[in-house]
Amino acid sequence: MQNRKEIAVVGAGLVGSLLAIYLKRAGHKVDVYDRSPDIRKINFTGRSINLVLSDRGLRALKEVNLDQEIIKIGIPVDKRCIHTGQDTLTYQSYGKDGEVIYSLSRGLLNKKMVDLAVAEGIDFHFESKIWDVTLSTATLHTGLEERGEWTEIKHDLVFGADGAFSRIRHRMQRQSMFNYSQEFLQLGYKELHIPANPDGTHKLDKHSLHIWPRGQFMLMALANLDGTFTCTLFMPHDGDNSFASLKNEQDLVRFFAEHFPDTKEVIPNLVEDFFKNPTSYLVTMKCYPWTYADKVALIGDACHAIVPFYGHGMNAGFEDITVLTEMMSKYGDDWANLLNDYENSRKPDTDAIAELSYRNFIEMSTKTADPKFILQKKIERWFSEKHPDKWVPLYSMVTFSHQPYSEALAIGDKQDAIMQEILAIDNIEQIWETEPIEHRILTLLEEN
Amino acid sequence: MQNRKEIAVVGAGLVGSLLAIYLKRAGHKVDVYDRSPDIRKINFTGRSINLVLSDRGLRALKEVNLDQEIIKIGIPVDKRCIHTGQDTLTYQSYGKDGEVIYSLSRGLLNKKMVDLAVAEGIDFHFESKIWDVTLSTATLHTGLEERGEWTEIKHDLVFGADGAFSRIRHRMQRQSMFNYSQEFLQLGYKELHIPANPDGTHKLDKHSLHIWPRGQFMLMALANLDGTFTCTLFMPHDGDNSFASLKNEQDLVRFFAEHFPDTKEVIPNLVEDFFKNPTSYLVTMKCYPWTYADKVALIGDACHAIVPFYGHGMNAGFEDITVLTEMMSKYGDDWANLLNDYENSRKPDTDAIAELSYRNFIEMSTKTADPKFILQKKIERWFSEKHPDKWVPLYSMVTFSHQPYSEALAIGDKQDAIMQEILAIDNIEQIWETEPIEHRILTLLEEN
Repeated sequence: MQNRKEIAVVGAGLVGSLLAIYLKRAGHKVDVYDRSPDIRKINFTGRSINLVLSDRGLRALKEVNLDQEIIKIGIPVDKRCIHTGQDTLTYQSYGKDGEVIYSLSRGLLNKKMVDLAVAEGIDFHFESKIWDVTLSTATLHTGLEERGEWTEIKHDLVFGADGAFSRIRHRMQRQSMFNYSQEFLQLGYKELHIPANPDGTHKLDKHSLHIWPRGQFMLMALANLDGTFTCTLFMPHDGDNSFASLKNEQDLVRFFAEHFPDTKEVIPNLVEDFFKNPTSYLVTMKCYPWTYADKVALIGDACHAIVPFYGHGMNAGFEDITVLTEMMSKYGDDWANLLNDYENSRKPDTDAIAELSYRNFIEMSTKTADPKFILQKKIERWFSEKHPDKWVPLYSMVTFSHQPYSEALAIGDKQDAIMQEILAIDNIEQIWETEPIEHRILTLLEEN
Repeated sequence: MQNRKEIAVVGAGLVGSLLAIYLKRAGHKVDVYDRSPDIRKINFTGRSINLVLSDRGLRALKEVNLDQEIIKIGIPVDKRCIHTGQDTLTYQSYGKDGEVIYSLSRGLLNKKMVDLAVAEGIDFHFESKIWDVTLSTATLHTGLEERGEWTEIKHDLVFGADGAFSRIRHRMQRQSMFNYSQEFLQLGYKELHIPANPDGTHKLDKHSLHIWPRGQFMLMALANLDGTFTCTLFMPHDGDNSFASLKNEQDLVRFFAEHFPDTKEVIPNLVEDFFKNPTSYLVTMKCYPWTYADKVALIGDACHAIVPFYGHGMNAGFEDITVLTEMMSKYGDDWANLLNDYENSRKPDTDAIAELSYRNFIEMSTKTADPKFILQKKIERWFSEKHPDKWVPLYSMVTFSHQPYSEALAIGDKQDAIMQEILAIDNIEQIWETEPIEHRILTLLEEN
């Protein structure tokens, strides 16, 4: 057991709330600060993508016995449903039978996480704007306005769980030897909405992640508990088929009729939603270091914001907590070494999930509709079922295991090189399910 | 001729001063703001590396007839002088006969540039701390302290020439779609000093850039007008043979005796300088975009800070001004398109010089002492003299030409691949100066 510390968690999002619960249970005094009003009292809508919870996130919740509470408000999803242009649907399972991820609406989940944290006796301070931090003394600076009066709040230790635009990181960024990058995609996104049927049921299969892959752009939809779907349109900010190119109702309706004809029935408020909801940005942010002595540490999006195409933003943030907890067991009260080991051991894995997430847009928007890719997935699954000890598909390593992301990325690259050789074999479409192919893969695995 | 604008240049450094001169001569009203006291009134020493001025910088100075004024305060340098461990010196010419770069002390040069700008009638506002800018209105915010009272200064257009830690860029960074990275080297540097002889002459050959290449670390020295040399010790911050490892006088003296024995006579104040002068950091900073509408533009280190190993920080910044001036001729009063073309056409070249500069540490610290590398340079020079139309060595393209940096980088990579093939030839040390080798290089050039 560690000695009791007074710890501030800045940010009452998903990672901040769960981290607060862990720290409280470990015996610390925990205060959570957030610049926004209490999320439980506001209507949270219009600019979010549904979250998916998978094994890494579940493990972190299970450790504090909250997994079942959260699963209750999620919808199990076991496959992709691909909406091709020709009004036909194809399905691609995510894993083996019984392997699912959970679709969760961000607002609902965040409210629940705050409720759970409050039930633990954690103090939340909403509408507390933290503008700055004095790193050497873990002192927060708060006030109504950035250029107004500030007051100081002193803690023993501060966690910055304040997201991609973290103020805590902002202060760390001004130090020498702080590496930092932010890179925006040319792609933006916009939330759209599929309402429930009058009887409260879902208009599409709720156990699928629906994708309308169209190459440079795509639409996707994930189910909510109330019969609705949260849809997300990803497309370039500028150029052909971009947000900038859809200037008015006529452009928009024509565009959807051409590219997403089967959504006409299910997105009745397309025009209103499209022009009301903001177009949001997608950024990959990396930095190092994540910590300052035994005083300040970043966690979640605050130190590794990723694009959403693998559905791992929350899972990676929750896994940060798992790693931090391991370090708490290992180092006890030696917080300086604890935090140092936390950042060093975790950084390669968050870099890897950033890379995997970036790549997955191409997979979702283009490859899911490509016969070669579909064949590749079939061969991988077939071989993996024969040799589960020799081949776990990349998606499964990332989503249904706790294998470090960096290992998954490296193994995935090796697997992909092997599959490119296999797919280049003459007539592979006809002969893939045969012993020579199985042996060829085994040989390539041994060579690599 | 453009319509007269009221233009603010933030930063009275080398690029800011020269830019101000260009803008003033183009008919604009120019005010230069700098957070520091007037550099002409202070003693500027202790944390700088000597600058080298080469063709790109000279071209920018010549365009406004200032090249001769500046050459007067510089020392021509035509070669590297390599101090090997065995107390022997070897020389490596930079270019062809007569091709030189100029060693300039930063303080002296900056004072001169400010003098020249003041002589043009440009208003300098020293000790004016610009904390922020309102991008949409080109309004600067200034005040004594960051958290104190600010006043507004309104211009038509603002140039941020305020260096690697630019406040102007800092504001741009907070916008969506602003890509940014800062990456620190594990290497730091410290200024040391070789005084003049009693008669005012230099203790080492003043027309050489002196290098003591030692692999992971190196010492270098560049001459000043007053008979002194500015020395720079580059070494890792931490680990073996690092700044952290030299804790006291004894460590330091032993380290220098072991690795730089021939400096004992020429650096008499080693101990005092070493422990008095700060250890500085080396950072590569990239960003995009560089401009905001027709209101704000970054220039020089403010948008592309590079490490100093190619001696191109100032040259690249001065060349930005050349490119900007071309755009002023091309677009006239259409500042929005002018600035847009400026950033787009210039960005690939500053990325390239960043890469070249980063790579050059390895060349200076390791390769200059490597017989294979020395042979490679000999072969390149020999071939280049025979076929000047077919082969200009990379260093010459970068330093003695105005060829875009990005082209130089691409051609240099191709040349290097060819030279690796040539160096792998059996017995190349004996046979390099022969017709078969000449023909082999010609063939490889055609194939690539």
